[in-house]
Amino acid sequence: MDKLYEAVTERGHVCVGLDTAVEYIPEKERSTTTSTAEAVLAYNKAIVDATFDIAACFKVQIAYYEEMGLAGLECYSQTLKYVRDKGALVIADIKRGDIADTAMRYARAHFEGDFEADFVTLNPYLGMDTLEPWLEFADKKGKGAFVLMRTSNKGRCDFQMLEDHSGRKICNAVGDKLSELARGRMGKHGYGAFGIVVGADPNSEEERREAVAIRSERSNLFFLIPGYGAQGGAAKDAALLLRDGNGGVVNASRSILRAWQSEAQGSPDLTAKADNAFAAEAARNAVIKMRDDILGAVKANAV
Amino acid sequence: MDKLYEAVTERGHVCVGLDTAVEYIPEKERSTTTSTAEAVLAYNKAIVDATFDIAACFKVQIAYYEEMGLAGLECYSQTLKYVRDKGALVIADIKRGDIADTAMRYARAHFEGDFEADFVTLNPYLGMDTLEPWLEFADKKGKGAFVLMRTSNKGRCDFQMLEDHSGRKICNAVGDKLSELARGRMGKHGYGAFGIVVGADPNSEEERREAVAIRSERSNLFFLIPGYGAQGGAAKDAALLLRDGNGGVVNASRSILRAWQSEAQGSPDLTAKADNAFAAEAARNAVIKMRDDILGAVKANAV
Repeated sequence: MDKLYEAVTERGHVCVGLDTAVEYIPEKERSTTTSTAEAVLAYNKAIVDATFDIAACFKVQIAYYEEMGLAGLECYSQTLKYVRDKGALVIADIKRGDIADTAMRYARAHFEGDFEADFVTLNPYLGMDTLEPWLEFADKKGKGAFVLMRTSNKGRCDFQMLEDHSGRKICNAVGDKLSELARGRMGKHGYGAFGIVVGADPNSEEERREAVAIRSERSNLFFLIPGYGAQGGAAKDAALLLRDGNGGVVNASRSILRAWQSEAQGSPDLTAKADNAFAAEAARNAVIKMRDDILGAVKANAV
Repeated sequence: MDKLYEAVTERGHVCVGLDTAVEYIPEKERSTTTSTAEAVLAYNKAIVDATFDIAACFKVQIAYYEEMGLAGLECYSQTLKYVRDKGALVIADIKRGDIADTAMRYARAHFEGDFEADFVTLNPYLGMDTLEPWLEFADKKGKGAFVLMRTSNKGRCDFQMLEDHSGRKICNAVGDKLSELARGRMGKHGYGAFGIVVGADPNSEEERREAVAIRSERSNLFFLIPGYGAQGGAAKDAALLLRDGNGGVVNASRSILRAWQSEAQGSPDLTAKADNAFAAEAARNAVIKMRDDILGAVKANAV
């Protein structure tokens, strides 16, 4: 987590989400590749090249690759490798969660071999013992994880937000356990190797207060904050979840990957001419704007 | 779920877990294949051939295949295909759980294409909206799912078993939502397309009573019951979770896949001579014993 902290200090808070669907890729490029997976890989490389110096890290949502079957997972593997070869950090958004021996096998799958990533996302529903094999790897190989705590989708109210006897939400029970875990594993910048996923889409004043409370209660946990851009969040919502200008990365996928489509909108000529270089430049501009918007919001909060 | 109900009626309750680790495979076979994934696929085929006429279904734990990287997922794909080509039913034990668009992509990944299965397992933590894309597929293509409700690992107490204001456990909130969902989607045998995963390892009288309560409260949900054999459960624990002799399948993996090792234990000669045919026969015997033990326990309960 120290590496991620330093990446944020150097390059801002943006986590570029490589949730690449084929329809995000310029038609011109799609028509010159022999397979969907090949087109996605070429697109990912163009985006990585254009943004790795201005982004904190990348996040790859494995569902988009599983959807393409075996060829998709080859593309997933190559994408992770490409990011890591650039010296950049990559979060495998896999949301795995399983018990004992199975968890150990998942940990091996995603912390070494074909699918090696620097961080993973994990689902805590089955219990803290399911995190243990991942922790062993984290300790040994300098890896990290983000555990789902509170998401911003409609369904969050079904289970995560249920309250116990004392009025404490289930997601806070997850937070408590993670804070406890972090205490024995603090990096030099004050964060544990396991952080949490916290949605940044407060739709009401109450939710805004809750976001502030989560940040202040979880001072030793690094946050992965999804929901920027396409999912409706904004810089000032995300800034509420940061701490002293660090302590979190903010993910955006579609608003970066599809930035070129917004630029070309309404112009059939531009849409037809668009290629990966055009898309990469638009992505770079979108990342710069997002980075500066968040830095601006952090500054405004600090005043 | 009707197909699974009928499979139980015809062939008993055993779900054969193909959680195949390379160390379960006879040394003789391992040394004649060129890769681990190839050895696992050959082993799986031998087990499927030896048990498909006496098992309700198969369950493939994807973590064991992800661990082997790309070659492992090729083996996973071939294993699913082999089971389905036999006319048998297969549950993809993937425990996925993600929001909106991502869930739709996971659903496409595991209900069609290279990784097509008949059923999947799902994690409900993020909320009921994460199940919707899977439901659409289930309706359209006659697929089904088992949603994690209550597991039997130590860590279950961390979150699933927490109680709300009224003393109701979180896992029961999951059960309530699933029961509600099933009502609109009943098969002809009285079960919804989405069932639940319920651990069968009651360690105390209280947990035993809880198991009975879960079964009677969830009369319209089909159960996937893990934890038989290697995980410590037994026929009479599993029988508590069945309903009128049906309504659930009971999974065992290691006790079937490693049955030959128990038979060969203490005999270096037998261990050296063992091959897949020997392992397959031992697996068949283990399935028959398990099937009959469960049928016996069901009968004893009915008296």
